[in-house]
This record gives sequence, C-alpha cells and structure tokens, in this order.
Amino acid sequence: MNIAVAQSGGPTAAINASLAGVFTEALKCDEIKTVFGFKNGIDGVLRNDAVDLSDYLKTDEDVEVLKLTPSTVLGSCRLKLKSFEESKEQYEKILEVFESRDIGAFFYIGGNDSMDTVLKLSEYFRKIGKDIKVIGIPKTIDNDLVATDHTPGFGSAAKYIATTVAEIIRDSQVYALTSVTVIEIMGRDAGWLTAASSVLRTMGEDAPHLIYLPEVPVTKEKILSEIKEAHKQHKACVVAVSEGIKTPDGKYLAEDNLSGNVDVFGHKYLSGVGKYLENLISRELSCKVRSVELNIMQRCSSHLASLTDIEESQQIGAAALRHALSGNTGEMMVFVRKSDKPYEVEISSADIKSIANKEKLFPREWINEEGNNIKDEALDYFMPLIQGEVSLFKKNGLPVHTIIK
Amino acid sequence: MNIAVAQSGGPTAAINASLAGVFTEALKCDEIKTVFGFKNGIDGVLRNDAVDLSDYLKTDEDVEVLKLTPSTVLGSCRLKLKSFEESKEQYEKILEVFESRDIGAFFYIGGNDSMDTVLKLSEYFRKIGKDIKVIGIPKTIDNDLVATDHTPGFGSAAKYIATTVAEIIRDSQVYALTSVTVIEIMGRDAGWLTAASSVLRTMGEDAPHLIYLPEVPVTKEKILSEIKEAHKQHKACVVAVSEGIKTPDGKYLAEDNLSGNVDVFGHKYLSGVGKYLENLISRELSCKVRSVELNIMQRCSSHLASLTDIEESQQIGAAALRHALSGNTGEMMVFVRKSDKPYEVEISSADIKSIANKEKLFPREWINEEGNNIKDEALDYFMPLIQGEVSLFKKNGLPVHTIIK
Repeated sequence: MNIAVAQSGGPTAAINASLAGVFTEALKCDEIKTVFGFKNGIDGVLRNDAVDLSDYLKTDEDVEVLKLTPSTVLGSCRLKLKSFEESKEQYEKILEVFESRDIGAFFYIGGNDSMDTVLKLSEYFRKIGKDIKVIGIPKTIDNDLVATDHTPGFGSAAKYIATTVAEIIRDSQVYALTSVTVIEIMGRDAGWLTAASSVLRTMGEDAPHLIYLPEVPVTKEKILSEIKEAHKQHKACVVAVSEGIKTPDGKYLAEDNLSGNVDVFGHKYLSGVGKYLENLISRELSCKVRSVELNIMQRCSSHLASLTDIEESQQIGAAALRHALSGNTGEMMVFVRKSDKPYEVEISSADIKSIANKEKLFPREWINEEGNNIKDEALDYFMPLIQGEVSLFKKNGLPVHTIIK
Repeated sequence: MNIAVAQSGGPTAAINASLAGVFTEALKCDEIKTVFGFKNGIDGVLRNDAVDLSDYLKTDEDVEVLKLTPSTVLGSCRLKLKSFEESKEQYEKILEVFESRDIGAFFYIGGNDSMDTVLKLSEYFRKIGKDIKVIGIPKTIDNDLVATDHTPGFGSAAKYIATTVAEIIRDSQVYALTSVTVIEIMGRDAGWLTAASSVLRTMGEDAPHLIYLPEVPVTKEKILSEIKEAHKQHKACVVAVSEGIKTPDGKYLAEDNLSGNVDVFGHKYLSGVGKYLENLISRELSCKVRSVELNIMQRCSSHLASLTDIEESQQIGAAALRHALSGNTGEMMVFVRKSDKPYEVEISSADIKSIANKEKLFPREWINEEGNNIKDEALDYFMPLIQGEVSLFKKNGLPVHTIIK
C-alpha cells in the first residue's frame, strides 16, 4: 500500500513539519511502500501530479531542513471541491488517480476550506465502499479551526508577531517627540494573531496600548477617540489592529480602501486598515504617525518559528498516519490541552463534520469590556505556544530550504 | 575625566553594540570615571539630560543584552546643529554642559547628518582652545557613508533582508498560478540594501528576478515592460525595489503617491513605491500581484542580526574611545577592508571634513548594463558582512531588551 499527502490553503512556518511527521512515521510502517506528495493540493491530485517524497528526504538532515522550510513545499491551491452531485467527474478522477497509485490513505494538511475537502472525499469513498482513508491535519496561522485547542502554524506566527512587535516598540520610542504607530496584523474574522501581541505584557511592556480585533465591531470615531486618549498617556503610542476589524453594520472599517477583489472562496481581499488609520490619525493628531503591515512575513518567517509549534506539528502529522492505519477516516486530528502550567497537550481526533466550514473566534470573555484590549486570562493560553527556539540550517549565513521542483 | 556618548539618526540593530563598545573599553581605562549617555542625541546634550551608563550596565550579561537590543537605547534626534555664526548659544550651551560634567571626549554614533555635528562641534572646541575630543562612530543601515568600507548596522539589515526575501520567495511559489511580488526595501538615494537581496544567488535562487536601485533612473514604462518580460520566464516573479527609485527627471517614481511631507532635514517622506507598482502591474497583467514593504523591521530586527556586524560595531566603538584618548578629534572611525576571502578588516579613522554631508552610492559598475540587476562582482563585497548568527537573550520565549528610562 502507498499513501498520499498534500497541502492546501495559505502557507505557514509549520506546515512542512506536519508533512515531515507523516513521512517519518510512514518510514516506520513496513506496509507502506511509497509516500506520494501531490503538488498543489487537491488540484494536483486531479492532475495526477505527484512526487515520491523519499527522492527528496534521504537523510535525517533533509527532514530537519524540511521542518524549517517556510510555506508549502508541495505547493498549495485554493480549489474547493464541488458537491458530488455537481461534479461527479472530479470525484471519479480522484478515485482513478488514487487507485492507479495504490493509495490506501490520503492526508490533507490545511485550514478551514481544506477540511471541507476531507469531509467530501471521505464521504464519497465511504459511499462507494472504497477503503481509502481520508484524514485532515490542521494548519492555519489564524487559529480559527474548531475542536482543536490551537492549530499548527499559529504558535510560530504568534512568536513572530510578539518578537517583531517588541522590536517595533523599541523603534517607536527613539525620538523625544510623541508618535502613534499602527501595526496591522493578519486575521479577517478571527483576532487570535492580533491578540497574541498582548504576550509582551509578560516582559513588562505596556504596549500595544490598544488592541482591536474583528470580534468586536468598532466605529472609526471610537478608535480615533481612544487613540487620542492613549496618545495623551503614552508618548510612543502603539496600536495593534487586525486586518479585518469591522464596523457595527458588518462592513470592514477600511472598506473604502479596498480593491473590491475577492479570492476564489469569495473572501474579500483585504489590505490597508493600517494605512487607513494612519491617514485618519494624521489628520487629527499633530504627531508622527506610522503604520506597519506585518504582511506575509507573519506566515513564512521560519527563522522565528516556535520550537513547540514545529515539534507539535510534526507529532500531529505522525499521529494522523497512525490514526488512518488504525482504520479511521473522515476525521481531523486535534490538540487537547490538559494543562497550562505545566503545559500538557494530547493529540486526539474529531469527526470532520463537526469542523469543516466552521470558525473559532477569539473568546469575547478574553477581551476587555471596552473592546480595545486583551485580558490577562488569555496569556496562559498563548504563552506555551510560543516557547522554544529553532535553529535554522544555514549556509554562508543564509537559510537552507527544501525545494521540490 | 568623564566621557559622553550619544546616538542619533534612524535606529539600527547594531547601534547599541557600538555604545557597548565605548562603555566596555572605558571600563578598562583608569583615567575615565563616568560614561555619561546623553538622551536623544545632541538634543539631550542641549537639555543636559544624561544617565550614568554604569547604572544600567552592571554585569557582562547586561552588556550582551544591550548589544542585541534594537534601536537606540539612549534615544535619538533629528536635530542638526546650525552653524556657529547662526547659533552661538547652542555651542556655548553644549560647552557649559560638557564642562559641568568634566567631559573630556564626546562620541557621537550616527549617520550622515550626525557626522555634520561631529564636524561642527570639533571645529568649535578647537577654535576656542578647549580640549574636548569629538569622534564620530558610523551607523546607518543605508551603508552610504564615504571613507569606510561599510557601516555598522548595514550587515544586520542586509542579513534580515536576504533571509526575509528568501522566505517571501518560498511563499510566492506555492500556487500553480503565475504571480508578481514586489518587495519594497529602504534606501532613498543609495541602493545598497536592495542590492544586498542579490546574495540569495549564492543559495541557488534565481529570484529576485529584477532589482531596481535609486542609482539608475528608470521610467515606469521601462519597469513595466521588464516585469512583463520576466513574468513570462518566471512563474513566480519577484522584484526588489528601493523606496527611492527615480525617473530620469530626478523625481521619485511614486511621486504622485507621496504625502508631500518632508522630514526635518528636508528629505521627502517616502512610502509606497511597492504599492504604486502593485497597482500599475495589476492593471496590465492578469495575474496575482502583491507588494510587501519590509518597513522598519529592516532596521530593528535584532533577532536576525549579523554576528559579524554586531562584533564589528562593538569593536569600532572601542576603537573610537582609544582613538580619542590618543589625542585625536574631528575624525570618524572607519573600516578598511584588507581582503574579501578570507575576510579581513581593519579599523582606522578619517578626517570628518572628508565625510560629513557626503554620500556613497552603490557603484554603477556593480549594476548590469540594463540597470535592472546586480552583477556577481558585488557578492564578494556583501557576503562577509552577513555572516554569523546571534543568539538573543530570551525569557519565556520572548527577547530581553535593555530599556533606559
């Protein structure tokens, strides 16, 4: 028997560690001959475009390099399978590809939209009585998948954000003049990443002084008045905002600034709430105003990955393989937190039906009443996820990455 | 005798290492009682606002933490001294402050504009016959100071840029669809930082496929046509542009996008050539187009500092102290490169008159004929400067920084 693995959705710093987990665990199983890595997610399955991963992962060092290679080495896609009724041919094509390669289990590493594919494919194989297991391995910097304590990739993004925001705070404090610095952080609907900037409090930082998440609607008048007030109290005022903060009528705050484009899932393409606020504040306050967009560095900065995240991502990949070999299908692997201090986590699984197309928002009870900062209660949740330092493989002072052509 | 040190200009990841160099070398000199750190550069001298650095640097670990704290721990300013004729009082005030604190030597760590202060102050003390030495310690991520092989701070910024651009390249390659990614890098007039992205060639990367510097004027038509051509050859086309690229008539390419603000030195405040090109390309090419501004992370990412840069920055601070004690004034410390392979550098000094208010541009002979990429000859210059990894002091997975209140 052979197995298949693919990656989908937006890149993270840990998604390749989960791929490494599936691969290294498969090496231990005599019944598995080949681990096929399909290119560009389910799109590559439809094209029957796969590599034999052992061609690329020959040594332990190859596996270690893979674990710290950012983004998806197999490529990704944004393709969402249509329903079986709408597109029978797609399902039959996938079956044909898998049967031609003797695939007994398929592992799909991805986020919310990818779990929809796990659901549909597993139901299809079950319905037609084919013994091909389909298991989802969670992955998203957004941390917005239900049923799991947290998602692989989130801890590394949170560590990047915390470290970089600390460095930006230092930078913002150099001049004797007053200033406002707006830091725009990813998160369309869920504010987990932006909220994670609050961990700097454990280092004695009082910044970010204001933190706005998509979970609490806000008007530009309210933000502006709160920034004015914070700016009176803090010479170098730092504000963290999620890209997706919304007004009470459900529109994005920076709606006027938007390109109007939508991605293939129909999500509005966002950019610029930081720049929008920078302009707004500049007109109202006579001080230095700057906006910084952390942009895709948030999701691809392997050099600042959390060791906890990388190790857990590998473990959850390995657990997925064992779970499929034990006869399970139509499930996503999840983390169950047993304890904050000391941090203890177990890997389990959940029915994909209870996960796909759902979204886990940042809890309202961890946001202060005014909706402009994070309560200390959230820190015990965040802190274990950003622990541990990785050490990149370097050559000539530059990182070595796995590249699959 | 006491000594004084201050920092000025934009932050870097290495400017505090030079401060550490002055301080630790002073500890070795019995004749120096106190090292005063003046806040906010020459502005703090005028306000007589100083700290005794030994209050903050009590242990070897304190010094090591300082060396890897980004930005200027003493604060910075953008104040440029007027000429003695225009503002006699400023000079007399500085003299009064220095005499009241028994300052025998003043070290000013800064860039181009700060060296103008070193020039004026040293000439003033000489003219009035006061034995107060004034020595400049170079610092700028822009690498645009003359007389020195390179500037402290540049190597760390270049290492950040190279590492981050490599990670962005990985991120840009995940989808099967074609794309153009524009990366905006700091540099108003000098393209050193943007050019440094070419070091990825040593790792086998073909990206960035196009590199535009302020040194070679370019029209938007030329850029657009070259990007169209590169996009035909490279599925995930990556373009590196300096924020300050200019048209043949000397205007900034993104002039229309500018805020119109100027900083206190009269420099135009730039932002947005990346976004400008993103919009331009989006209208002409039907593919995914993204722009990424590396923003202030370029200058404050201590977590990715070059060990070579940090060590050299400390050494040049120490050398400045010895140079002043040997009776010199009105000079800036410089690096003289003896050899590329193996890398060998010596610290020397140069008359400040030959340095202040001058600018060292990226050599035209290291840019290809078309003006859109960097020749291999530049790699031997760049590579030694980004070597060596630093290890941040961390607590709970977060960096520890020196903070001087």
